Amino acid sequence: MDFLKKLKHSIEKNNSLLCIGLDTDIDKIPPHLISSKDPLYEFNKEIIDATYDLLSSYKINIAFYEALGVSGLSQMERTIIYIHNKHKDLPVILDAKRSDIGNTARMYAKASFEQWHADAVTVNPYLGTDSIEPFLDYKNKGIIIVCKSSNPNASDFQNLRIDGEPLYIKVTRKVLKWNTKYNNCLMVVGPINEIKAIRKILPDMFFLVPGIGAQGGDLEKTLHNGLRQDKSGLIIHSARAIIYASSDKNFAQKARDAAKALKNEINKKR
Amino acid sequence: MDFLKKLKHSIEKNNSLLCIGLDTDIDKIPPHLISSKDPLYEFNKEIIDATYDLLSSYKINIAFYEALGVSGLSQMERTIIYIHNKHKDLPVILDAKRSDIGNTARMYAKASFEQWHADAVTVNPYLGTDSIEPFLDYKNKGIIIVCKSSNPNASDFQNLRIDGEPLYIKVTRKVLKWNTKYNNCLMVVGPINEIKAIRKILPDMFFLVPGIGAQGGDLEKTLHNGLRQDKSGLIIHSARAIIYASSDKNFAQKARDAAKALKNEINKKR
Repeated sequence: MDFLKKLKHSIEKNNSLLCIGLDTDIDKIPPHLISSKDPLYEFNKEIIDATYDLLSSYKINIAFYEALGVSGLSQMERTIIYIHNKHKDLPVILDAKRSDIGNTARMYAKASFEQWHADAVTVNPYLGTDSIEPFLDYKNKGIIIVCKSSNPNASDFQNLRIDGEPLYIKVTRKVLKWNTKYNNCLMVVGPINEIKAIRKILPDMFFLVPGIGAQGGDLEKTLHNGLRQDKSGLIIHSARAIIYASSDKNFAQKARDAAKALKNEINKKR
Repeated sequence: MDFLKKLKHSIEKNNSLLCIGLDTDIDKIPPHLISSKDPLYEFNKEIIDATYDLLSSYKINIAFYEALGVSGLSQMERTIIYIHNKHKDLPVILDAKRSDIGNTARMYAKASFEQWHADAVTVNPYLGTDSIEPFLDYKNKGIIIVCKSSNPNASDFQNLRIDGEPLYIKVTRKVLKWNTKYNNCLMVVGPINEIKAIRKILPDMFFLVPGIGAQGGDLEKTLHNGLRQDKSGLIIHSARAIIYASSDKNFAQKARDAAKALKNEINKKR
């Protein structure tokens, strides 16, 4: 099934816009798991089993696995396969922020979709159209372009004004164009008021919204300004506040409680 | 030894600004190597043994290895260790174009330097200062920020004009600031005439120049416009034109011939 179908299906089935980030950090997982052979994988399995029916998608942040080298990436690969095998309609987003010239971008796209089996991948637009095209050509996958990130210094370049509008709006207009090919684009948009202007340009697109929770973004305003007319179109991402809700043996149950609370809060404010 | 010392040492010792890119593609290496257990690694070893005394540095493009998953990355890791063990003063640049918010950027920096043992890494500036700082904090490593890339659509965003100057000049000015902390920044600058304006702002910095050779950039103009007053300060990168000079059993010798020719051409035009 293609990414957007999977995503819409999960949103409806689970009545949830929540996306849980498996930013699994060897220094933050419960102590009793550290001694296992594949601690990241074991942790992820328990989190997945406890949360799969509460969300729209999982997001796997590849950096946390690459930080453990080949062993970490192997645990990431097994995690993605585990999700596909056990919950075949749940989409997996690979958060990789990839970007390079055409022949290299092709390799990154191949890695994301053919090796790691992701349904969607995040990419960085700075290198322009031909750096994104090799991703777009996987027409059944989701290509999630960073438009406006959620970090403190996001505005260093993204808010520079060109012909009276910020760079991130220029990116938005370009994505509008990229999306005409296969309608498989999404964007990363931080929880900012300006999401309203972005939504105006792209009334139908899904936006992945990081920065709610641990990063302090305002959920209510973001929903108000960013939702489509059908009250969908946003994927609200949370990682740390959910997966590290507890470091006790019952961490998975606590993660479920935190996920359920956030899912419900989102639905109340939709 | 820190990256910049290693780099200067190799440039002097080998009298070369050349950087060879190990963009090792399973579909392009000589047929007789395909059946070996670790074809990328075996290919790289022969290329390294044949070229190590002709260059300033190797650049490893991680995308080509990630495209083969865990096995590819393991071969990449072994390649880097091979270079360090056999030629301990030769710097290894990891071409990864990484970028993300602070806590994730920390993981990418850790992966690049502590897992893959790179001496330097390329990064993408779009997310701003706090996405670069975790890399800068490895003060003995080289942080190579993409300023102006060499691909056909590089100008989509990089050339947008802000207050009368292009975005890539805004990036240049920011790198000038980032570099004040530990003096460990470099930039990726394509082979364009505008390298002259960039050199004016950063008279002492090393620039990594891709796009010469297979991508068709003009070597003479680039050297004329980009070299520092001491006739150094550029690392001229070439991959395909060297490592795939032949697909016969003598491919390594042919790669050496091509590397020698380019090294000499660069020196003639310096």
